[in-house]
Amino acid sequence: MDIIVQKYGGTSVGSVERIQNVARRVIETKQSGHHVVVVVSAMGDTTDQLITLARQIHKNPPKRELDMLMATGEQTSMALLAMAIDEYGYKAVSLTGYQGGIHTDGYFSKAKIDSIDPHRIQEALEKDQIVIVAGFQGYTDALEITTLGRGGSDTTAVAIAVALNAAKCEIYTDVLGIYTADPRMVSTAKLLPTISYDEILEMAKLGAGVMHPRSVELARKNNMPLVVRSTFDFTNDGTEIIEVKEMEKAQVRGVTLDEDIVRISVPNVPDRPGIAYKLFSSLINLNVHIDMILQNLNHDGFNDISFTVPLEDIDRIIPTIEAFVDEVGASPILVKKDVAKLSIVGTGITSDVKIASGLFGKIYELGINIEMISTSEIKISCIINQNQAQQALEEVHRYFEVNGL
Amino acid sequence: MDIIVQKYGGTSVGSVERIQNVARRVIETKQSGHHVVVVVSAMGDTTDQLITLARQIHKNPPKRELDMLMATGEQTSMALLAMAIDEYGYKAVSLTGYQGGIHTDGYFSKAKIDSIDPHRIQEALEKDQIVIVAGFQGYTDALEITTLGRGGSDTTAVAIAVALNAAKCEIYTDVLGIYTADPRMVSTAKLLPTISYDEILEMAKLGAGVMHPRSVELARKNNMPLVVRSTFDFTNDGTEIIEVKEMEKAQVRGVTLDEDIVRISVPNVPDRPGIAYKLFSSLINLNVHIDMILQNLNHDGFNDISFTVPLEDIDRIIPTIEAFVDEVGASPILVKKDVAKLSIVGTGITSDVKIASGLFGKIYELGINIEMISTSEIKISCIINQNQAQQALEEVHRYFEVNGL
Repeated sequence: MDIIVQKYGGTSVGSVERIQNVARRVIETKQSGHHVVVVVSAMGDTTDQLITLARQIHKNPPKRELDMLMATGEQTSMALLAMAIDEYGYKAVSLTGYQGGIHTDGYFSKAKIDSIDPHRIQEALEKDQIVIVAGFQGYTDALEITTLGRGGSDTTAVAIAVALNAAKCEIYTDVLGIYTADPRMVSTAKLLPTISYDEILEMAKLGAGVMHPRSVELARKNNMPLVVRSTFDFTNDGTEIIEVKEMEKAQVRGVTLDEDIVRISVPNVPDRPGIAYKLFSSLINLNVHIDMILQNLNHDGFNDISFTVPLEDIDRIIPTIEAFVDEVGASPILVKKDVAKLSIVGTGITSDVKIASGLFGKIYELGINIEMISTSEIKISCIINQNQAQQALEEVHRYFEVNGL
Repeated sequence: MDIIVQKYGGTSVGSVERIQNVARRVIETKQSGHHVVVVVSAMGDTTDQLITLARQIHKNPPKRELDMLMATGEQTSMALLAMAIDEYGYKAVSLTGYQGGIHTDGYFSKAKIDSIDPHRIQEALEKDQIVIVAGFQGYTDALEITTLGRGGSDTTAVAIAVALNAAKCEIYTDVLGIYTADPRMVSTAKLLPTISYDEILEMAKLGAGVMHPRSVELARKNNMPLVVRSTFDFTNDGTEIIEVKEMEKAQVRGVTLDEDIVRISVPNVPDRPGIAYKLFSSLINLNVHIDMILQNLNHDGFNDISFTVPLEDIDRIIPTIEAFVDEVGASPILVKKDVAKLSIVGTGITSDVKIASGLFGKIYELGINIEMISTSEIKISCIINQNQAQQALEEVHRYFEVNGL
């Protein structure tokens, strides 16, 4: 019997009724002749509530204890789901990250899965049980409880699917699948029946937020079929994530907006070999995701270095950057928070010059200044002012007639 | 440096402010030159809330999953307490039942501690950390999470104190210590500065509810000094539990009332050898605490057997008793729920006939019918009607002039 791994996010298990709904869906899958392994997140806003509670006690809670606290969220939802399945007459067992064999490194709150020992999951499946595993959490060599950071439940689900050699991994969420733009922001956004790994990776990184990039990368590397679909509408097949083999006509597949970024500029950095490496390696050591980097040769052997980082990381990296400024004798750093990153995504779009020039032309037409630009094989991103970002998103989506069908 | 184990109950850690209060008390103890190991319960009503949630999903939740759910309660409070201690500048680490080495048998929701492996606690103490261990929970050989049942946190605390060879075990609670009667029910109740193990054991079993009997028995067996004191008034020394070496003048030390019991009667049981054993052994197999047992030789070789059990167990044991009735041909069982058990406790009181006759005389004077009587070395209990129980408690307390001083 093949195995299907299903992951349900916080909204999907946000109430007693929703947990019962998930239980029915899981049982339906079991009845159609599959083993089912379920990965759950914490109920609704539980994670945020726990963080709020912790912050009332400590302005910067020790990460080990924060993980200890957060791990209770999934433990609660998984036990309740197991009870709901049992009430419907099916056998279920819930497993913590430790019991499920989710072994991680020791980076509290941002741990990465090292390996999965699935023997206990397999034993339960052999007993014909539905297995529920806590998403987002694991354990270390020292038997410490870790969490994988936001979106970690997706990664748990894919990693378990790979370890079990599952037939597919289904990510259930509160939207029907992947859209051409965030439907809450662009009313004409359309559902994509398929999307390539590359495209969803860029969409996720750029703030579309449906799937965590680590999980997509893991699925691709292991050829694990991945589907994103709705917890609240089982009739809709959602979006299947596929490997695009042939390059078709370049087409914009999605437009995304990320407002949770900050632009940092370090003016007048002496132009010496290895000096940028020095700055960025010290930031990478802090486990910060540095996104766009711009370095202009300025004047008389001095550079201006600008880059963007996630808003949530800004406070903790400032001291490191200031130490760099002091050490190399650059000018005081400039931090700009009211920026947003608008991106278009689609396989091959950067090889079609008409698309890039169309994008820049449209933004110019709207009277919006582009502060930074970056491109990859399949995306083009612009940093613009935040107060013009929503308008730009809608207009660019309309301009490219982005179409999911 | 010696070790003090402190246990804080649910009320003591019921809010952010109260957790901070506990943190200060723990640090104060540490500052006075001791290693401190803290055992915590779940915050306030958390355990009841989790049970309510589970019952919304399943009318009789599988015990394994219920334990999985309940264990999150202590995991939450211990992580928050560790953060509070850290915020005050002291090092703390919280440990789950598993991490703390609390090994139990496999009876979910009523597990018993088999053994404690304290090596991880000791390692943390050697690093000068304050160690916080989840009360009420443990793990089995199969790495399942178990809970010890109500009051289990006290047992966790004493068991850890014994395993660490601690100097003493302090039980912090929402009252000043052990009283001559429940102060919420008897306004003239007084605090006892000392009480014997025997006396507190009887008080606890009889519903005074300050300490769990398992924990007292464990402390006595291992000569672990035990103190019950208040979380909200550190200036009061509370009640010390001591071994009474010399028999002094018999004195009533406390009056207790237990309303959460049910009387079950099985009329007309054939008087054959081993027949009572048959009934009670089948109930003991269900892990039921059977309290008072009365067997009257009735007529023509038939007995009436009556006994009391905790109210919470009644529904699940009825089928077993009815099967017994069918098998031996007794009459249908009678269940009486509106009963209460009034008890007086004091070392040596049953050897002083004036005390027993005084008790029965007083109850008679109040016009209350005594349905069952049982006595031990240090207590005398009467089953009476529940609607007269409160009056009887107050009057008996006044009659014996029960005095803590």
